[in-house]
Amino acid sequence: MTKTRTYLDWNATAPLVQAAREAMIAAMDVVGNPSSVHGEGRAAKGLMERARAQVAEAFGAQGADVVFTSGSTEGAALALTDRNLHCAGVEHDAVSAWCEVDLPVAKDGVVTVTDPAQSTVQLANSETGIIQKIPEGLAVCDATQGFGKIPVAFNWLGADMALISAHKIGGPKGVGALVLKQGLDVTARIRGGGQEMGRRSGTENLIGIAGFGAAAEAASKALADGLWDEVAEKRDYLEAMLADGVEDPIFVGQGAKRLPNTMNLITPGWRGETQVMQMDLAGFAVSAGSACSSGKVKASSVLTAMGFDADAATSALRVSIGPDVTKEELERFAKAWLSAYARWKKRAA
Amino acid sequence: MTKTRTYLDWNATAPLVQAAREAMIAAMDVVGNPSSVHGEGRAAKGLMERARAQVAEAFGAQGADVVFTSGSTEGAALALTDRNLHCAGVEHDAVSAWCEVDLPVAKDGVVTVTDPAQSTVQLANSETGIIQKIPEGLAVCDATQGFGKIPVAFNWLGADMALISAHKIGGPKGVGALVLKQGLDVTARIRGGGQEMGRRSGTENLIGIAGFGAAAEAASKALADGLWDEVAEKRDYLEAMLADGVEDPIFVGQGAKRLPNTMNLITPGWRGETQVMQMDLAGFAVSAGSACSSGKVKASSVLTAMGFDADAATSALRVSIGPDVTKEELERFAKAWLSAYARWKKRAA
Repeated sequence: MTKTRTYLDWNATAPLVQAAREAMIAAMDVVGNPSSVHGEGRAAKGLMERARAQVAEAFGAQGADVVFTSGSTEGAALALTDRNLHCAGVEHDAVSAWCEVDLPVAKDGVVTVTDPAQSTVQLANSETGIIQKIPEGLAVCDATQGFGKIPVAFNWLGADMALISAHKIGGPKGVGALVLKQGLDVTARIRGGGQEMGRRSGTENLIGIAGFGAAAEAASKALADGLWDEVAEKRDYLEAMLADGVEDPIFVGQGAKRLPNTMNLITPGWRGETQVMQMDLAGFAVSAGSACSSGKVKASSVLTAMGFDADAATSALRVSIGPDVTKEELERFAKAWLSAYARWKKRAA
Repeated sequence: MTKTRTYLDWNATAPLVQAAREAMIAAMDVVGNPSSVHGEGRAAKGLMERARAQVAEAFGAQGADVVFTSGSTEGAALALTDRNLHCAGVEHDAVSAWCEVDLPVAKDGVVTVTDPAQSTVQLANSETGIIQKIPEGLAVCDATQGFGKIPVAFNWLGADMALISAHKIGGPKGVGALVLKQGLDVTARIRGGGQEMGRRSGTENLIGIAGFGAAAEAASKALADGLWDEVAEKRDYLEAMLADGVEDPIFVGQGAKRLPNTMNLITPGWRGETQVMQMDLAGFAVSAGSACSSGKVKASSVLTAMGFDADAATSALRVSIGPDVTKEELERFAKAWLSAYARWKKRAA
């Protein structure tokens, strides 16, 4: 008997979409180095520039500069190093590593920005799905979790720079982009051949970039086709099922503007890591927060920044879904989780 | 009629080998984030660690730390920033960007190192193929062009750290590794989730890494099977054909220890870029030096460092081949090139 697995951890990384797979396999036959002047080099360059146009189009960034990176973590280092911008505690570690973490976060997750030109704010939070209002003139916006799940256009976003990543939208892991308003610049951190207009040297991840372009185009179409409205309905359906069986459930961000695919449920005292392991054994991939390195067990800094205490911040379960997830899968998950919850309640009593 | 193309620019980037292609396509079905603790995450982690073992084995670096990067350019930044090491003018821009370029280079391309612990030297040069003797205790060795083409084992190399890149050995572009002796460390330049033991954060390029592992294993086997000895014979055959038709040919590094696949021929006065374009029109992909960004036309800094004058250093043709290239293809190339050479001589006369 094959064990059935259900993947409900799309915010950690989304499954590769068919269009990205096909574009990557096609790119495997393009032998040239995009920096070479011969036919093979020009073909590789052409493929890369096509992907750049696809990403710009999908992100509403026509006319802006799209600098390909190895992902949003590198993009954050490129955009933020030596700038000492202000950020809030709900930002991803890849962002807060370079910032003054001193912006206030309300209980509902909303960040207050006082000096946009000297601040960075995420578009949406990976753990809670909470969406921020991006103030006009913001220095940098980490749009990694929002792009592809909600309508967003860089040219209307209000930020000077934004970070996006392929693997959150059905592209491959290890490729992303820093998008900049034209006329702005950043100091290259990886130097050498002068690729990406001198902002990011190194032979480009051609196959990954081709996958990113195709995934961006597909994500844009899925959004326009209303697939993420259906995702929101499914997420709400899941929350309703769980709410029915839980005493005083705490759904983080339920009242706020949220990504359509993210549920964050706090069950004080029942550790998130334990829930993740129990659900894993039952065949479901979920998470206790963002996918940190090697499964560190610690209180979520996102929830702590929102004012939750350590007990609550270690007792969160994140379920993040996408268009491929069915209601039937969510019903099976709800059943498995509620059964584990009941066992825990009994033991805790 | 399909136009036949012959790719003779393997040092710029090598065609993807079948084993890498298959490993990458298989990795496309692995959905998890290697940092996630659930089954899907562990499967992704397992795939990555398998690739790490393959790379370590192929590079003779068992027991050393293999830190995956987006390529040797990033690896160079990681290994070299803020260390101000000494290097020679024959190093790649990605290396010299971070160094004091003050080590002497002899006319035959050999670099003299006085203080190994404060220096970086390449294993082999991308333009000339010239192989350096790596002094014991060398701080950093850029092994990008040597790895996979000549026998080399990190554990016997004498260097504390080394850079390698997948796309030079038949893997995908945009993935590489910094290899370190155990106990050494580097300051992370890309921070956040703490991946790669904190040395290089960011969700890993899983598909690319899988391809790198498979390519490394295949490269190691090809080398053991003697395929690169055949490459050397073919390269020598090409040089002999060209030498027959050229007045006083200057084959750079012909007397030195050289990579088996690289030919660098200087024809003073006939610009390398012109040759590349003429050969491209005739169906052959060759190069005038390393694949710089967007085909800058300038004197080769490698040849200049070796003492060639500006005229010679702008008149080089690099042909770099691999196991797939046939003698028949080289015969066709020699014919096309000699014919263009004769036309140039006539015009120049």
